[in-house]
Amino acid sequence: METKMKESQLVTKDQLFEHWEGHRRLTRRVIEAFPENELFTFNIGGMRPFGAIVQELLAIAEPGLKGIVTGDWQPFDESLKYSTKEELLEAWDRTTANLPSLWEQLKEERFQQTVLSFEQYEGTGISTLQYFVDNEIHHRGQGYVYLRALGIEPPFFWERE
Amino acid sequence: METKMKESQLVTKDQLFEHWEGHRRLTRRVIEAFPENELFTFNIGGMRPFGAIVQELLAIAEPGLKGIVTGDWQPFDESLKYSTKEELLEAWDRTTANLPSLWEQLKEERFQQTVLSFEQYEGTGISTLQYFVDNEIHHRGQGYVYLRALGIEPPFFWERE
Repeated sequence: METKMKESQLVTKDQLFEHWEGHRRLTRRVIEAFPENELFTFNIGGMRPFGAIVQELLAIAEPGLKGIVTGDWQPFDESLKYSTKEELLEAWDRTTANLPSLWEQLKEERFQQTVLSFEQYEGTGISTLQYFVDNEIHHRGQGYVYLRALGIEPPFFWERE
Repeated sequence: METKMKESQLVTKDQLFEHWEGHRRLTRRVIEAFPENELFTFNIGGMRPFGAIVQELLAIAEPGLKGIVTGDWQPFDESLKYSTKEELLEAWDRTTANLPSLWEQLKEERFQQTVLSFEQYEGTGISTLQYFVDNEIHHRGQGYVYLRALGIEPPFFWERE
């Protein structure tokens, strides 16, 4: 019965989480690839340094998933809390540690229900989660250009382990 | 009955296509935002100009979906076929016109079956489709930095209509 349900899904809940986690592992490697100083200062065309982008991603991932699970939202807060690479990586790893139990609490019916994320952005559960991941990919792509401009080879895009 | 099936899906086949199409509409706007000459010449850190990236995306979208649908794969060919913005946009629009009928032919069971895309990359149907979209978002993010470096404001990331 369980197998049958799984087969009837285009994508399973586990697969959606594994996809997100794979992207988060890659983003962590991009953070690691930045030299400490450039992480918080280097930019192109007036865009934010990659460290500021990472704080946006941190402000989305755990608070966002918590909001989808519980329906309780805090105002969106991407203010700059960390000023060293180590602090940023520690914050990243705390999020990584906290996501699985939140994901476990996420009920399957939430994916098709309406969500007003951060009390501002209307979508379904699934479109909101897709937006979180897409936004991370988009901004990480920006990080790739920063690294190349700094003469640093970024991690392979397809490597997600 | 159909409603019940739909409700049991975390994400429907239609929604997955709409998500991809939304990203393709945004990418089209990024192509349009480039000045003709910079589209094929401007780069940062030795990376490809955005025009070359777009030819990669064209080499993936329609041949890739056709391969998933039919199981027939042609060797991956991202060679540079277009040298003007108009040609590139025409090619983009041909792909846009051809994707819906291919998507219609895509059987739901393909999403969880093994796919060896371009006879090289093993995944499931869904992970392969996710890779196509993720790769487009990633490289388009690169295009955003190029535009900013050129002093041009890119289209809003959240605008997908």
